[in-house]
Amino acid sequence: MRLRHKPWAKDKLDQHPQFVVANPEMHKGNWHNVFEKNQPLHIEVGTGKGQFITGMAKANPDINYIGIELHVSVIVAALDRLIEADLPNLKLLNVNAADLGKYFTKNDVDRVYLNFSDPWPKSRHEKRRLTYKDFLKLYEDILVDGGEIHFKTDNQGLFEYSLTSFSAYGLLLKYVSLDFHNSGYEGNIMTEYEQKFSEMGQRIYRSEVKYQNEK
Amino acid sequence: MRLRHKPWAKDKLDQHPQFVVANPEMHKGNWHNVFEKNQPLHIEVGTGKGQFITGMAKANPDINYIGIELHVSVIVAALDRLIEADLPNLKLLNVNAADLGKYFTKNDVDRVYLNFSDPWPKSRHEKRRLTYKDFLKLYEDILVDGGEIHFKTDNQGLFEYSLTSFSAYGLLLKYVSLDFHNSGYEGNIMTEYEQKFSEMGQRIYRSEVKYQNEK
Repeated sequence: MRLRHKPWAKDKLDQHPQFVVANPEMHKGNWHNVFEKNQPLHIEVGTGKGQFITGMAKANPDINYIGIELHVSVIVAALDRLIEADLPNLKLLNVNAADLGKYFTKNDVDRVYLNFSDPWPKSRHEKRRLTYKDFLKLYEDILVDGGEIHFKTDNQGLFEYSLTSFSAYGLLLKYVSLDFHNSGYEGNIMTEYEQKFSEMGQRIYRSEVKYQNEK
Repeated sequence: MRLRHKPWAKDKLDQHPQFVVANPEMHKGNWHNVFEKNQPLHIEVGTGKGQFITGMAKANPDINYIGIELHVSVIVAALDRLIEADLPNLKLLNVNAADLGKYFTKNDVDRVYLNFSDPWPKSRHEKRRLTYKDFLKLYEDILVDGGEIHFKTDNQGLFEYSLTSFSAYGLLLKYVSLDFHNSGYEGNIMTEYEQKFSEMGQRIYRSEVKYQNEK
């Protein structure tokens, strides 16, 4: 995604503490206190401009959502959506995915969404892919037992890599679609990127994987 | 595949016992006796007209191969190829895959190939798919520990199903290609079917999965 520098963006996030969690380390182990209702928590790692997570939060009021995005100039667009939609079950977090363990602890999270993550196609960048084993460990350490990762991408190489990475980590492949938009799945909520690239005829890949208690 | 009745085919198989193993149950646990050399044994379940297995046996003289095919009128074409090529490291077996356990025992086989298996797309026919769990158990019971299944198909639904079936069985997904013919893989040997359908622009899917000792 093209990143445009927005010097005012950081201030805007700070001005909306009801939507953008300011001191996330304070809520470790107690995330339900941040929301109106104590209900399952799903997070999206790399939430971008927030179309997916806002759509999910609207469609599923009985689930709490947190959209996590590193780039200030991108998450500010997600904030605009959230201000507009004014949803009680969605918060944003402007932190690095690699630091998830600072802000969440075991059982805090019920599901992780990864959507159109950066493919980092070069082998030497494997460790940056959000489905690399170190990230799978990070997610495991904050998820409930039997927690799931739901993953969408249009990048064939990243999807191939991720299936083998999931398997090597001992995750159960519950669901795989190699042409998700023609799979008959109902109720899909698209990301900005997904909408654009599927309109260009790009195949969308999707999987659901589950942590297994016995590894 | 269209099956044409060939009343003479059975006789032809019987007339070539050096290529078509007549009493396979006799060789259970001692398949190396059937071949000139005692070397690893790879089998193809559903060998069709034999283009793949014949090509593999030519390319890899240090491996023994057995092509298994239920349909007499189909395997007779594989026999023609084998008579022509006169390979010491390839045998054919005209039996039902469901009966593999009658003819092979643990450690007899080092690798199983499945190529363009019948997709049996209807849910009620799931048990007939060669990647259904009962078949994965059959293969496990005749393979060495850490043995592998190498699987190619152009059928998206069968590939999706098979990935989840492999995973549920506890197999390790070592390799996945979602567009095998554009993957840069060298030395691929094509089946008749693969040649025809890839020329028509059909994507070929391929995976390598491995049995893990600790399940």
